[in-house]
Amino acid sequence: MRFRKIINDPVYGFITIDNPLIFQIISHPYYQRLRRIKQMALAHLVYPGAVHTRLHHSLGAYHLMCNALSELKAKGVDITFEEDEGAKIAILLHDIGHGPFSHALETVLFENIKHEELSLLIMEELNHQFKGALQIAIEIFKNIYPKKFLHQLVSGQLDVDRMDYLTRDSFFTGVSEGVIGYDRILKMLAVHNGQLMVEEKAIYSIEKFLVSRRLMYWQVYLHKTVLGSEMMLVKILERAKQLGPWKSNSDSALDKFLFDPTQTASLKNLELFCNLDDTDITGAIKSWCDHPDKVLSILCKGITGRSLLKTKFETGPIPQKVIDTLREEISLRVGVSVDDASYLAFTGEAVNSTYDLSDEKINILFRDGKVLDISQVDNALIHHNLSRPVKKFYICFLK
Amino acid sequence: MRFRKIINDPVYGFITIDNPLIFQIISHPYYQRLRRIKQMALAHLVYPGAVHTRLHHSLGAYHLMCNALSELKAKGVDITFEEDEGAKIAILLHDIGHGPFSHALETVLFENIKHEELSLLIMEELNHQFKGALQIAIEIFKNIYPKKFLHQLVSGQLDVDRMDYLTRDSFFTGVSEGVIGYDRILKMLAVHNGQLMVEEKAIYSIEKFLVSRRLMYWQVYLHKTVLGSEMMLVKILERAKQLGPWKSNSDSALDKFLFDPTQTASLKNLELFCNLDDTDITGAIKSWCDHPDKVLSILCKGITGRSLLKTKFETGPIPQKVIDTLREEISLRVGVSVDDASYLAFTGEAVNSTYDLSDEKINILFRDGKVLDISQVDNALIHHNLSRPVKKFYICFLK
Amino acid sequence: MRFRKIINDPVYGFITIDNPLIFQIISHPYYQRLRRIKQMALAHLVYPGAVHTRLHHSLGAYHLMCNALSELKAKGVDITFEEDEGAKIAILLHDIGHGPFSHALETVLFENIKHEELSLLIMEELNHQFKGALQIAIEIFKNIYPKKFLHQLVSGQLDVDRMDYLTRDSFFTGVSEGVIGYDRILKMLAVHNGQLMVEEKAIYSIEKFLVSRRLMYWQVYLHKTVLGSEMMLVKILERAKQLGPWKSNSDSALDKFLFDPTQTASLKNLELFCNLDDTDITGAIKSWCDHPDKVLSILCKGITGRSLLKTKFETGPIPQKVIDTLREEISLRVGVSVDDASYLAFTGEAVNSTYDLSDEKINILFRDGKVLDISQVDNALIHHNLSRPVKKFYICFLK
Amino acid sequence: MRFRKIINDPVYGFITIDNPLIFQIISHPYYQRLRRIKQMALAHLVYPGAVHTRLHHSLGAYHLMCNALSELKAKGVDITFEEDEGAKIAILLHDIGHGPFSHALETVLFENIKHEELSLLIMEELNHQFKGALQIAIEIFKNIYPKKFLHQLVSGQLDVDRMDYLTRDSFFTGVSEGVIGYDRILKMLAVHNGQLMVEEKAIYSIEKFLVSRRLMYWQVYLHKTVLGSEMMLVKILERAKQLGPWKSNSDSALDKFLFDPTQTASLKNLELFCNLDDTDITGAIKSWCDHPDKVLSILCKGITGRSLLKTKFETGPIPQKVIDTLREEISLRVGVSVDDASYLAFTGEAVNSTYDLSDEKINILFRDGKVLDISQVDNALIHHNLSRPVKKFYICFLK
Repeated sequence: MRFRKIINDPVYGFITIDNPLIFQIISHPYYQRLRRIKQMALAHLVYPGAVHTRLHHSLGAYHLMCNALSELKAKGVDITFEEDEGAKIAILLHDIGHGPFSHALETVLFENIKHEELSLLIMEELNHQFKGALQIAIEIFKNIYPKKFLHQLVSGQLDVDRMDYLTRDSFFTGVSEGVIGYDRILKMLAVHNGQLMVEEKAIYSIEKFLVSRRLMYWQVYLHKTVLGSEMMLVKILERAKQLGPWKSNSDSALDKFLFDPTQTASLKNLELFCNLDDTDITGAIKSWCDHPDKVLSILCKGITGRSLLKTKFETGPIPQKVIDTLREEISLRVGVSVDDASYLAFTGEAVNSTYDLSDEKINILFRDGKVLDISQVDNALIHHNLSRPVKKFYICFLK
Repeated sequence: MRFRKIINDPVYGFITIDNPLIFQIISHPYYQRLRRIKQMALAHLVYPGAVHTRLHHSLGAYHLMCNALSELKAKGVDITFEEDEGAKIAILLHDIGHGPFSHALETVLFENIKHEELSLLIMEELNHQFKGALQIAIEIFKNIYPKKFLHQLVSGQLDVDRMDYLTRDSFFTGVSEGVIGYDRILKMLAVHNGQLMVEEKAIYSIEKFLVSRRLMYWQVYLHKTVLGSEMMLVKILERAKQLGPWKSNSDSALDKFLFDPTQTASLKNLELFCNLDDTDITGAIKSWCDHPDKVLSILCKGITGRSLLKTKFETGPIPQKVIDTLREEISLRVGVSVDDASYLAFTGEAVNSTYDLSDEKINILFRDGKVLDISQVDNALIHHNLSRPVKKFYICFLK
Repeated sequence: MRFRKIINDPVYGFITIDNPLIFQIISHPYYQRLRRIKQMALAHLVYPGAVHTRLHHSLGAYHLMCNALSELKAKGVDITFEEDEGAKIAILLHDIGHGPFSHALETVLFENIKHEELSLLIMEELNHQFKGALQIAIEIFKNIYPKKFLHQLVSGQLDVDRMDYLTRDSFFTGVSEGVIGYDRILKMLAVHNGQLMVEEKAIYSIEKFLVSRRLMYWQVYLHKTVLGSEMMLVKILERAKQLGPWKSNSDSALDKFLFDPTQTASLKNLELFCNLDDTDITGAIKSWCDHPDKVLSILCKGITGRSLLKTKFETGPIPQKVIDTLREEISLRVGVSVDDASYLAFTGEAVNSTYDLSDEKINILFRDGKVLDISQVDNALIHHNLSRPVKKFYICFLK
Repeated sequence: MRFRKIINDPVYGFITIDNPLIFQIISHPYYQRLRRIKQMALAHLVYPGAVHTRLHHSLGAYHLMCNALSELKAKGVDITFEEDEGAKIAILLHDIGHGPFSHALETVLFENIKHEELSLLIMEELNHQFKGALQIAIEIFKNIYPKKFLHQLVSGQLDVDRMDYLTRDSFFTGVSEGVIGYDRILKMLAVHNGQLMVEEKAIYSIEKFLVSRRLMYWQVYLHKTVLGSEMMLVKILERAKQLGPWKSNSDSALDKFLFDPTQTASLKNLELFCNLDDTDITGAIKSWCDHPDKVLSILCKGITGRSLLKTKFETGPIPQKVIDTLREEISLRVGVSVDDASYLAFTGEAVNSTYDLSDEKINILFRDGKVLDISQVDNALIHHNLSRPVKKFYICFLK
């Protein structure tokens, strides 16, 4: 009997793994680490179901990749076994470079390096361990593989990454409006002149996909309370960096990344990075609840007990005077300096585009062979206005 | 134990009826007739699951009305028992005036009267039978009841009718992208200055609602094959009218509506109308498959065996020459006159607006008490362009 | 581009047809007739969503067959293209011999012939029309094809017919407890010594499957009101047979089957049978509402307006005296003879087995190659008691 | 406007909190700690979606309690506002005494105290903090409140706890066969002679409920890999207890519970307990991956990288000789003593009853007022055999 593992997935039913190499990659400790990184960071403080992991998301994206490749092959697109395997490995590992709390902490923990670069470093290390078996996967990931549509399936406006995270995040948050017709879009994929596109019939599904994404951004990912609590996380680590390094535990992976700038810069020690996950941050925050520094302990208790800073959105920039007054008031109330109060009252901006024209495009393939970007289609919902990023201004402060 | 009936509904789980009067209305033969009228006419020829009935839809809309009224009462809106009952009866009966195949045949069967007028006539007859118990329901339906928001729940941009039909039609067709967040919208309903509106937080849900409706129109209700087959239905009845009246069966309700213009004009005989449903049309079409008139038999066999006219959408009007050539070709091929070929090759227009500014508006209630139409909200998806109706031109012809 | 049609199905998402012959069969008027035969007869009088059709069910069973065959092939079971196509056609057509209202009217309309025999007759006619292309399908259907597991997929304790109807009926009624893990069972199918069986891991899913079926029988298919209304249907046709034949309409297909015993016996005229569907019965019943025969008009009005006979279940046989008294009372109340009152007050039995040992068995394939019937597995839920049929006695009478 | 918070739940749609006291309890850090305790311990190693938390489960059980109380009140059962509030608080807090990894570690971390006792202790502390507002909740929880059915809703064969965990665990694992008809059961609840029971019509739903539970136990909760990995967790803590106490971190809550027997016995320090959650265990395990003790590091690396002991079920007890041979082989292979190898190869038993007759019963209330235990109903699926616990023997060992 052939090799075959099936994994239950509440979103798609069953995910099938029928390739031993792919199973070995999934079984690798580097991949298993993704079990301990939540897909949606602190969104579960608002949407209690949103505790699913990066591992679950990348398995889901792998499943959609399997379906997409089958559809394209059924339509006569030429995809070899090696390319099929490569595209599946590329999507499986596309997020392997994510650190604790994913995007929320990316900037504060790893200042000079993006998660895509880390993913690539880890893919290369795995390629070494698996004796070159990931070569095509890496070329697809880096977009240097000749068949461009394979990379576009991994990373593009219509990639299976987005299709899975919108579907999955909508499922686990219970925000049913986020549901996209991923199965219809997959059925409508086509390759034309080597590029990934969608058939004309899928226009309304693509519109729905973009509007669902818009909704998920403003209602979930950038929900004011989610945003506020993720900013508290950033402030906690910034404060710890300012206060530290401390003696105890100084050999922990987290301490190294917090206090040793050479680590973050070079990342020569991948093993150390691959040891880091959400539990390190959560554990540290719990232990800092009793830290003598008032600012740190207030923020850590706030996250631990879900007693969050208040967050408000405004349509324009928040005047400096408003924030100064708040800081003074907090300084007096809490007994910290006005400078330190800047950890407890601060402003920022949240930005999202419904459809970014400057980014990769969604091409619609018409029956007559014509190709148009979705924003140029007649009577389009997706027009130039929507491609302009929407900026919202927020203020967070201790109640 | 109090009066309580529960009905299984695959869409909402359970529908509860806890009012004996409402149960009596549901049990009335006029209401039960709606079991024999498909909600989506011939859409099942493309979406085989779409065979649900007007009865099921109006029960669903009644269920959403129950939820909407509960939410509003929980928010402190003053609604008396009589008003609550009236609004529920009004929505239950809002479609009771639908004839066979609903909208598809409205214009050809009942030339001078709209289904809303028929609904009102039947409601008045029921009010008579139930000794005035439907008085408030009728006032709400006619929008002469002082609390305007009750009528707006029955008929308006955000009424429970639309919420149910979008949800239900999307459920039964399997077009999952049509799903709207009806439960979130219901939770966000508010009454302000006597008008129905939605809280600011619901903006993205409303956008999704309007985009889902847009998608359902173009992908389902105005799907070219659905449109084409419903036009065949119209042509069949027009042809029958032209050929008839015939002798046998001349006492059938259908024949009376087809051939007796006084019937349709006055509708004094409601009982006759309430005897008419989809089976009369389907039965007639089946019996006309062997009709000596070629045009009639071709069309009837086409509908019965799902051998449909070919329908194509074009962005501009179809030139008369194109249609003339087609008719001549069909005339020769089938052996009918060119005039008669106009039943087998014809053109038309399909129109839909995503958001009709001239119609009733969707008002957003902001935290500070400000009220804005959704098309005026900053960064709105729903803008002036979308309020312009989209017109598509189609041609149907015998292959 | 290869041949490929996709059909939206609310139950499974999309059904794909990628074989032109199968598409031609689906397009044949004999198959399209199944659009006008409800899968669950009058169950919609209790479960308003249950209006789906035999066409929809057989498309769904075809979809599950596609999945089952893929799974088996992925496990190394040898299935040729012709066998694959044959099994798919066999399941598509397994119900094509169903008459109006399916099982409910089988005994009264076609006294001497079962729907499986009719299915076979129609398959043979189609085989003729398609020049022998259905040969293997027919052999599989008749269980004379050497690879027995193919027939077992079409008709057996674990066939895709049952899997689809339980899943679909549960979906459309909204009886969520009827849900079975069809996808898990499909994943666990195996062929051993040429027989269809399931892997050991699926034991609990099979238990759930059998318990769901038990629940669906007693809660839905044999629901007292469903049973009662379907018995009314039988009584209506029996009464019509007794009263008829009448003159008008005497050329209708229904009249022929009702009044011409030669028709029903020989069925030489398949075309006539293939012209018969639910609308003929519903139309006749509507027209008989005003029939001078009181019994007929009472029953017909009852079905049309959902004013049903009262049905009660009893654990033992209903004493003759009870039924006699009821008939006398009704005879006086309604003004019909006591003999005629037997149409308005009658008794019967409903029988169902949870697991019928005498019927085909469900074999469990253990890791060590051992095969056991599910009722013989240790600690089995499915034991000998459950294989004994459960009989319930019912009485129906005019209130 | 009245107090009202709504929480998105993928399982039930929305959970409404309309009582300020209940909102304060939910906001308390003791309750928020449940965010960091997974409902299903290590089941996510097999079912990657099963990462939902005790907080989410208890919110869900609270939601079902709200529905159950509404139904009972609609049926005329007398429930005061205080009793309604008490029952809701009791279910909200019924699991608050759960320690890290819930049941999996209960015996090893808190030897002399059950989680129900801990829940009670914490409820009493909260009652103190909330000035006696939890009095009725505590009486209901302890089953000393006169209206026994309120306790039965919190803890009994048909309590909302079980209904939520079966529904929720089935949802998040994706094991769709675990779905129960909770909404139908809730609609069928009744109170008779002060006891909670279900109406006759719900018999099949109750059967389905019990069979789903049976399936969930054997397919999920006692899945061999889940069982094996949770036993690894136990062995890790046992090994740590044996090796410790160690110096560093000796002030951590986990160390106190591991190494200070007075803590576990008295639990006078509730604050310490309420500081303990999954992250403490996961963090410790990650740090012990490099521990010099081979046994500890092997087990910890195994859990962290999902390289698990192999687990096998046997129908009879595993012979001592088998386990001895395995231990000797492992001792040689790994380089640990045979005694220490007992952490890497061991046996155990898993037990589950489908329906425990000795435990509280499920009473069926018949129309005529008769009350029967479900196992005594005619033709019952649930019979005496099923009430006998099923015992399975397992062996776990290092591959």
